[in-house]
Amino acid sequence: MQGLMMDRPLLISSLIRYAAEFHRDTEIVSRSVEGPIHRYTYADAERSSRYLAQGLEALGVGIGDRVATLAWNTWRHFELYFGVSGMGAVCHTLNPRLFAEQLIYIVNHAEDRILCTDLTFLPLVEKLLPQFKTVEHVIVMTDEAHMPDDVPDNYLCYETLLEGRSDDYQWPEFDEDAAASLCYTSGTTGNPKGALYSHRSTVLHSFACCMKDTLGMCSQSVVLPVVPMFHANAWGTPYSAAMTGAKMVFPGPGLDGASVYELVDQENVTALLGVPTVWLMLLEYLRAEGKRIDGVESVVIGGSAAPRAMIEAFENEFDVRVLHAWGMTELSPLGTVNTPRASELDLEQEERLKLQLKQGRGIYGVELRIIGPDGQPQPWDGESVGELECRGPWVSSAYFKNEGGDILHDGWFPTGDIACIDSNGYLQLTDRAKDVIKSGGEWISSIELENEAVSHPGVAEAAVIGIAHPKWDERPLLVVVPVGDFSDKASILEHLRGRVAKWWLPDDIQFVDELPHTATGKISKLELRTRFEDYEFPKGDN
Amino acid sequence: MQGLMMDRPLLISSLIRYAAEFHRDTEIVSRSVEGPIHRYTYADAERSSRYLAQGLEALGVGIGDRVATLAWNTWRHFELYFGVSGMGAVCHTLNPRLFAEQLIYIVNHAEDRILCTDLTFLPLVEKLLPQFKTVEHVIVMTDEAHMPDDVPDNYLCYETLLEGRSDDYQWPEFDEDAAASLCYTSGTTGNPKGALYSHRSTVLHSFACCMKDTLGMCSQSVVLPVVPMFHANAWGTPYSAAMTGAKMVFPGPGLDGASVYELVDQENVTALLGVPTVWLMLLEYLRAEGKRIDGVESVVIGGSAAPRAMIEAFENEFDVRVLHAWGMTELSPLGTVNTPRASELDLEQEERLKLQLKQGRGIYGVELRIIGPDGQPQPWDGESVGELECRGPWVSSAYFKNEGGDILHDGWFPTGDIACIDSNGYLQLTDRAKDVIKSGGEWISSIELENEAVSHPGVAEAAVIGIAHPKWDERPLLVVVPVGDFSDKASILEHLRGRVAKWWLPDDIQFVDELPHTATGKISKLELRTRFEDYEFPKGDN
Repeated sequence: MQGLMMDRPLLISSLIRYAAEFHRDTEIVSRSVEGPIHRYTYADAERSSRYLAQGLEALGVGIGDRVATLAWNTWRHFELYFGVSGMGAVCHTLNPRLFAEQLIYIVNHAEDRILCTDLTFLPLVEKLLPQFKTVEHVIVMTDEAHMPDDVPDNYLCYETLLEGRSDDYQWPEFDEDAAASLCYTSGTTGNPKGALYSHRSTVLHSFACCMKDTLGMCSQSVVLPVVPMFHANAWGTPYSAAMTGAKMVFPGPGLDGASVYELVDQENVTALLGVPTVWLMLLEYLRAEGKRIDGVESVVIGGSAAPRAMIEAFENEFDVRVLHAWGMTELSPLGTVNTPRASELDLEQEERLKLQLKQGRGIYGVELRIIGPDGQPQPWDGESVGELECRGPWVSSAYFKNEGGDILHDGWFPTGDIACIDSNGYLQLTDRAKDVIKSGGEWISSIELENEAVSHPGVAEAAVIGIAHPKWDERPLLVVVPVGDFSDKASILEHLRGRVAKWWLPDDIQFVDELPHTATGKISKLELRTRFEDYEFPKGDN
Repeated sequence: MQGLMMDRPLLISSLIRYAAEFHRDTEIVSRSVEGPIHRYTYADAERSSRYLAQGLEALGVGIGDRVATLAWNTWRHFELYFGVSGMGAVCHTLNPRLFAEQLIYIVNHAEDRILCTDLTFLPLVEKLLPQFKTVEHVIVMTDEAHMPDDVPDNYLCYETLLEGRSDDYQWPEFDEDAAASLCYTSGTTGNPKGALYSHRSTVLHSFACCMKDTLGMCSQSVVLPVVPMFHANAWGTPYSAAMTGAKMVFPGPGLDGASVYELVDQENVTALLGVPTVWLMLLEYLRAEGKRIDGVESVVIGGSAAPRAMIEAFENEFDVRVLHAWGMTELSPLGTVNTPRASELDLEQEERLKLQLKQGRGIYGVELRIIGPDGQPQPWDGESVGELECRGPWVSSAYFKNEGGDILHDGWFPTGDIACIDSNGYLQLTDRAKDVIKSGGEWISSIELENEAVSHPGVAEAAVIGIAHPKWDERPLLVVVPVGDFSDKASILEHLRGRVAKWWLPDDIQFVDELPHTATGKISKLELRTRFEDYEFPKGDN
């Protein structure tokens, strides 16, 4: 027997329509690429999004077609989020920081028909366009006054495309499972793979973001997402802000400390979202200039683990609550958020910090489990580690065009992260699955070993990789960039002893001039493993 | 093109499973019908719900079967919510305050196979059972020690039914559109009609309740729903509390001021929900005993309009934030909530109060529109009135067994309320559609006239009804219960002049000894209209 409730689809257009109806005067403020601050309202944004939908239709864009963006966080990018998905096409956000070959691969794989670009990235687009096989039009996200003179005929001006459109356009209604947006994730191995979000997954994820226990987005919030809109949809901020009518502040291309501070201060920002790197820049600026950000209530730190010193700085020095969060492109991206439960409010500072270093508690909608070395779900005891797997209505079930084949394990999404979960459901990541050292049926965390190693004064940078071992399967090798000409292996081993379990101690230490890094600045374990392919441990009594 | 996100159904079982996983130690505290305070945890509640599901299966209850409850707000009623819906059956909450004939009609119409009752209502059940044609078993919600001795064979003990069940039972998965719960609404005309909620509508409604902008339910909340679980699912509180791991406090049969205060005080309650009547009792008790409820952050007032004096008392006298809300059984029930926007935080006290008297702002998921006397949607200007219509995924599309036929107007649910909406999306109810006086193509609010009339010192109670009029279609008649032998019509008219528009002034005033009331204490306009069926206005110059 079916319930007798209305069969209304959860569509992205309903989010912006809600904001335009119930928060029509609430502002969206952006630092523009052209320079000045741009401000308008949700009513304006919704109208422009409908103009945009009509403009795209006029260019022949239809249901399911991919429209790519190469753009900063601005009001025009915001309009693209709603205009493209709202009309039934797929908003495909491109990361301008990728290598040229990756961009070419992704655009061709996605078969983008339209490419919308900020002025900033026009030189890049001009260079790569001949290799973008499916792109018919380039839409330059600016007005006529700022359009370059000498562009080819298939380069259109964004604002011109919106001109003369009808106010009568109604958002179409269709299946909530329809594709809405596309975001590629570039793993360290293989080709980039596309997470293809649906309208349903996006709306449900937005609900989760507005829960008081997660990001607590609300109509009193003034939200500045420093996290880029090309990075997992800026953690869904544009959608959840519209769902609740929060004032939005977009930083445009200005991600340095001074620019972010200026907007925070002038627009009375209450909530910040971004990765640790941008907060390092902001904290540095605040300290150097003796500035405060007293209006900010919370800063969401995600993307990579929030360092202890950063949490302490925000909480103790600047009185800003840190919400440590964890997610993945394949999770839309929110998976866990570290908001305290009632019983944890009165923890001593040190205990509280230890708790905050964890990636957070599971939220309704994302089921978690930990699969141990034996292939079995592990207990939630804060100690048993295993690969983290997720399940839920905003978790990917496959990649676009089935790239990578069947990615699920028993209906669950394997994250590639090694983690443990405590009895209160707090998640703590300990390593990447491919980096963990499998020794005698147990796992050694490369990250923990590295963290302990760099606390030795003679170690500038450290990486741990697993080396094949006849008896233990794998054993850890510590690769160190020394400070100066430091080269005392015994001193480092002595330093580690007592800090890690005895059987975790590396079997050898190798000194190198430098470590290989990926495009995003992380140590490339892949390249390091290749470099040490033929390495053998010294004969010993292991 | 479909998105590539997991196809996971939104099921009620996932709510309690979430709470048991991530908030396993969080308490559920109840004043029991038997007397003592009962306390256990979400982990316990989830386990018992699974035992209950097995017990019901053993009785032959299957998918879609109706299981009725006649019960107070307690942990056992909570288990029924999740056990019954979780196994795929339909949890049908009965209102024990209904007349016997209504209960008989509803149970037979719903075809309830099982009736679960608190000890309190056992005498009622024994009396009516012969007329409940489909009920096979009565489950008495108590333990063996409290079971009456002399009950028939088909009376079972709740706790005994749960004994010896397996811990391995897994919640079944099925279509999220399946029926989950049933609640009849007793209009003033016709038979009671059943709103049949689905799993999907319930989960989406729970998300809405956990938004910071609505009820703000969260893991730090300690929630005491005084609103009964037989009244529109206690406004969804059991579901939304589980979704976020809020501590629940159930008042059982103790709804008087002293009992509610005792629980609030002992359990550190932070959030209260209920209708104005119970708050009158609580406020009276607090004042008489000189007690405070300083731990309470918010009180949700719904069910009928929150009086100004009540809002002032909570806000100014007791420092508790009032969340004025509006909903209907057919809306699951949440429709609007009065939480201030950022720009309204700094309003002067009088302005703030005026805003708080409105029923609140629309929330994402419930679309609103106002259909005027001309059948057209009205502007949102705070003045144009019309019948309120709603649309959304947790709004009824029909009543159970299609009672009342096609109830939608153009896909929208007509609420039967007359309202206006201001430019910020705040809803204000002004009358019931059937009570509004249609005069010359315009509408006169009976409620506003009554409110102004009772402020005259000679008026004890007042009701306004429309009387047929040859020229104006209808004109208002004011029916007054006077204080003592007061009988000066001119003085009342003089009092109204200046307080309402001139064309709103009643064409006549009739004095009566008493007004007819419904079972729930409201003035019965229906009966009043019958009584004045043959009334004619005195001949005048209208």
